Amino acid sequence: MDEKSKKLLEKWHSVVFDGKPELLHDILAEDITFYSPVVFKPKTTKDETFFVLSNVIQVFQNFTYSREFVNGNNLALEFSATVGDKSCKGIDLIEFNEDGKIINFEVFIRPASALMALGTEMNKRFEDAGKQTGKLSWQ
Amino acid sequence: MDEKSKKLLEKWHSVVFDGKPELLHDILAEDITFYSPVVFKPKTTKDETFFVLSNVIQVFQNFTYSREFVNGNNLALEFSATVGDKSCKGIDLIEFNEDGKIINFEVFIRPASALMALGTEMNKRFEDAGKQTGKLSWQ
Repeated sequence: MDEKSKKLLEKWHSVVFDGKPELLHDILAEDITFYSPVVFKPKTTKDETFFVLSNVIQVFQNFTYSREFVNGNNLALEFSATVGDKSCKGIDLIEFNEDGKIINFEVFIRPASALMALGTEMNKRFEDAGKQTGKLSWQ
Repeated sequence: MDEKSKKLLEKWHSVVFDGKPELLHDILAEDITFYSPVVFKPKTTKDETFFVLSNVIQVFQNFTYSREFVNGNNLALEFSATVGDKSCKGIDLIEFNEDGKIINFEVFIRPASALMALGTEMNKRFEDAGKQTGKLSWQ
């Protein structure tokens, strides 16, 4: 792993594990695109992406990364977590721009039961915040 | 990417794109563990894993890999495909042993609609083959 990639990875770790929302806000590019594990249509504003990621960080418990892959400005990070009483595996697929800000963030979750638990909890948080909920469609 | 990792990646590409089931059978280690995107419990026999993967290769249409990550004996491969009329993104997380055989295979799918479509089609194929179906649980 080269020095630049290592810095990007360390920067992201500090966002996840230091628990400071301002770090997360600072690392997101203004033109970020966020792809949820639940719905196909991406979120294309920094405000929405910040809302989703800052809440997801709270919803996931016992969060740990295991295999971590780097390819230039791209990271693929394998994680384990729990959502309520469901065990969960996932991948964070993250692309940085040349300024070291995240411009693409895509999340994958397995199994289906954990994906459903996450979607249900996130929709509740969207509603509590007076935001439009994402459509939880299995069709 | 070192020469050994490049060979593992090329070997896997030929399994996916040459359409020869014997290549798939040959590349799976006898003690493979397979983690489905739908259910948490892994499959731990080569027969079951071969059945799932050979069928999944048929179910996915318009299959392409995009970002590919290598870390020693591990690959993380981003793909796009369609399942029926659903667009699908995914990650294949693949670990090889020292003999160049796959000992760990984990698949992640988004969004939920594509995961459901894949689970439904795969259960049908399990039933048609007289095998016990995986539980399609969203709870």
